[in-house]
Amino acid sequence: MDSEAFRKHGKEMVDMVADYWDSLRDRQPLPDVKPGFIWDLVPDAPPESPEEWSKILADVEPIVLQNNTNWHHPHFFAYFSTACSYPAIMGDILSGGISSIGFTWKSSPSMTELEMIMTDWLAKSIGLPEHFLNSHPGPGAGIIQSTASDATFVAILSARARAVSSYKENNLIKSPVPQPEDDPVITFGNHDASIVSKLVAYCSDQAHSSVDKGIMLASVKMRKLKSIIGGPHKNYFIETETLESAIREDRARGLIPFIYIATVGTTNTCAVDPVRALGPICKRENIWLHVDAAYAGSFSLCPEYRYLVDGFEFVDSFNFNPHKAMQINFDCSPMWFKDAKEATTYFNVEAEYLRHEYQAVASDYRHLQIALGRRFRSLKIWFVLRALGIEKIQESLRQRVKLAEEFSDLISHDDNFEIIVPTHLGLVCFRYKGDNAINEKLVNTINDDRRIHLVPAKINGVFFLRLAICSTITNSKDIEFAYHVIKDLLPKVL
Amino acid sequence: MDSEAFRKHGKEMVDMVADYWDSLRDRQPLPDVKPGFIWDLVPDAPPESPEEWSKILADVEPIVLQNNTNWHHPHFFAYFSTACSYPAIMGDILSGGISSIGFTWKSSPSMTELEMIMTDWLAKSIGLPEHFLNSHPGPGAGIIQSTASDATFVAILSARARAVSSYKENNLIKSPVPQPEDDPVITFGNHDASIVSKLVAYCSDQAHSSVDKGIMLASVKMRKLKSIIGGPHKNYFIETETLESAIREDRARGLIPFIYIATVGTTNTCAVDPVRALGPICKRENIWLHVDAAYAGSFSLCPEYRYLVDGFEFVDSFNFNPHKAMQINFDCSPMWFKDAKEATTYFNVEAEYLRHEYQAVASDYRHLQIALGRRFRSLKIWFVLRALGIEKIQESLRQRVKLAEEFSDLISHDDNFEIIVPTHLGLVCFRYKGDNAINEKLVNTINDDRRIHLVPAKINGVFFLRLAICSTITNSKDIEFAYHVIKDLLPKVL
Repeated sequence: MDSEAFRKHGKEMVDMVADYWDSLRDRQPLPDVKPGFIWDLVPDAPPESPEEWSKILADVEPIVLQNNTNWHHPHFFAYFSTACSYPAIMGDILSGGISSIGFTWKSSPSMTELEMIMTDWLAKSIGLPEHFLNSHPGPGAGIIQSTASDATFVAILSARARAVSSYKENNLIKSPVPQPEDDPVITFGNHDASIVSKLVAYCSDQAHSSVDKGIMLASVKMRKLKSIIGGPHKNYFIETETLESAIREDRARGLIPFIYIATVGTTNTCAVDPVRALGPICKRENIWLHVDAAYAGSFSLCPEYRYLVDGFEFVDSFNFNPHKAMQINFDCSPMWFKDAKEATTYFNVEAEYLRHEYQAVASDYRHLQIALGRRFRSLKIWFVLRALGIEKIQESLRQRVKLAEEFSDLISHDDNFEIIVPTHLGLVCFRYKGDNAINEKLVNTINDDRRIHLVPAKINGVFFLRLAICSTITNSKDIEFAYHVIKDLLPKVL
Repeated sequence: MDSEAFRKHGKEMVDMVADYWDSLRDRQPLPDVKPGFIWDLVPDAPPESPEEWSKILADVEPIVLQNNTNWHHPHFFAYFSTACSYPAIMGDILSGGISSIGFTWKSSPSMTELEMIMTDWLAKSIGLPEHFLNSHPGPGAGIIQSTASDATFVAILSARARAVSSYKENNLIKSPVPQPEDDPVITFGNHDASIVSKLVAYCSDQAHSSVDKGIMLASVKMRKLKSIIGGPHKNYFIETETLESAIREDRARGLIPFIYIATVGTTNTCAVDPVRALGPICKRENIWLHVDAAYAGSFSLCPEYRYLVDGFEFVDSFNFNPHKAMQINFDCSPMWFKDAKEATTYFNVEAEYLRHEYQAVASDYRHLQIALGRRFRSLKIWFVLRALGIEKIQESLRQRVKLAEEFSDLISHDDNFEIIVPTHLGLVCFRYKGDNAINEKLVNTINDDRRIHLVPAKINGVFFLRLAICSTITNSKDIEFAYHVIKDLLPKVL
């Protein structure tokens, strides 16, 4: 395909995307397919010779679109939102068209530098302390990771290395121990498993499953702290004494608490860990404080939600996902380090073919992530923040909150249902006033009905339903519709 | 921006990408910028109100394109190629437009299923044993990872878990040890650092830096085996006795060799580890055999390079990057497991909000990767394999090989230079017949000159230059041009 053909077919693809969005209301949120459907629709081997583009394009609707879950359908209320906006798509078209790989500054200077200034734009817009800015003279930095899972994992690995290194210093252990110079077996000093085995990571029992996964894969121990319901948000939170007593107990048995992964906007109920209260304990105890605000972080763009970043002067690293509520397409999970210079040393491996003349003064983003290769993801941040402006994004965030409150009102005035926690940032947690079995039957009936899609959650054995405002085209009528679908189906499960 | 505006501006963006490609020859491979250039070009905060799209678009050329490294410039010969093709860009436009997240089968059925059949298409096309196919009744599977770094890291983590689990079984250790049922501190049995500390990973001293990084971050020990030059390719390879004696020595000192990461097509010289010879040793010793064929794997699409996957019946996991030589844009690093069912158990963390009715029978790709979220990357494989057909891709691979041989011929008939290893799959390794300092000066002079771009490498203290055929628009005249630039600059460094 030459550039003339791409000008033609690329534009057809743009139209196909626009047509898809224009037709969203005629689709259903969940498709009617079962595992294995693809094997009858797609041949079992690729063609030897080129196929006509028109034939390829004609397969998209019946094979891909009709059999997919439509995350942007106005009646999709599951998980949390994933972002999509036209300016973001254009950022990704350009990223694909440029197709450079930015592992070092030199391999793609504009990718590295635009990412530096875009993470600064985001940091300022959501009110992070200025020492996190790339433009600040200190060692702080922002970088775009793929997902919150990646960001959390990078935070755990950084904290682990800092703890191992600090343990060795305090115990006067030369790194690696004991290792003669000509030993062909290398122990990576800052990642030494014999010390890693003493480390314990903390998080709330409300933390996302990706936190468990990161802790597990980092080979450290995990202690999930028991949250209680209450506090300013009447939601699940960790008391300072819960953290303090865990630290005391674990130190007494010879373990080293090394990271607390705080959650700002949990998946279960959009609960917020009290960073301002827990921060000083982490600081005193030399525990790395990471904040995962995957969903809620975007809301801090609005002054009225700035409490979400309160106490962030204590934070060692932080991530949120503009690819959730900020209209910047997946994947885009910016992360900030209080001391990126230190973190860099924990990820640095050298190779002659990656060296360049500016490496002492420029940012080589490969040292703050697991992978080497990276895409030009800052383009979509740049396009979205400029094409929408801060005010339009604030409007759309407030619209999510408003719609959730509308649904919450309907539910709380209905004697059949109860609200689990106060509705927060576009998420409504509710249940039928009955046992778990009937609520489980209700959510399955709702999803099998296909008119709306939502997912359940469970806390302390209590099963409930979550309705999250996901699509940017959801409106008040859709909220009433969702409520009526649930009311309509309720008698079927009773 | 509404869909009408997107139809207009999205098409302008398609034209911008086509214009960029049409103008590649008028650009230079490396830009003339220094670290920090962005701060004078981009304002230090995003706008409050929307900006005109035309103003945003007008900034792309002077800020992004003019200050970037052009990986697809015909005179870019650095690292290895990164792929780009128009059908692949269209796959990414559609992926962005659909914007669903495929962590479970249910969250995006067509994403999961098209990925299953596309990894099968690739596996068949490059000649992998059929037990790696998703359509095979056994426990094998293919998945798309982001990068080779991710794939290698996932392989190391899987192998680590298998080794820990196997050690515990053999030593009758209950997992975790000793842990009363009500202990709030969890040790993840298969990732227990007290056993991880005994594990040692092997690779060739020619392995890519991402292998070092994966081993380091997995907290295991590393032993880089010393390669020698010779064998069928007259390139760097690992002798079976080198592996055997390392295993003997390490077992004698109480360590557990648990993975060998073989490299098929190294970055330094495109060398190939002898998988058929090393495989039986790994099998006998219960060592996980992972093959990283990031660059070279694509070439196995041509029957004459099928030796690259020889001995793969011994392989536990394998990855290659169609985003290097197969015209499928980054990120796209498919990976195959011999036993994905087992690997799944090492990455599985459950959450109520992720459960679905088909999870016992369908593939939930989140269990074979580190992150939870994932993009619809199989679309670009589908589009490229169909729009080009196997034959056109084979042609482009053979063209790379032919061009490298043309450059190699020019160099080997020039008394100033020597070829380091026989030219293999589009990579020429050469040096001026002089000391390292002069070669280092030569490569710096070449890059500072800006007409062509290449990077050096070093083996056993010997510094040399690498010329890799990267762009799909590079032709024989560009090869002569590159040679003449080097000849032209040589007197300046002598």
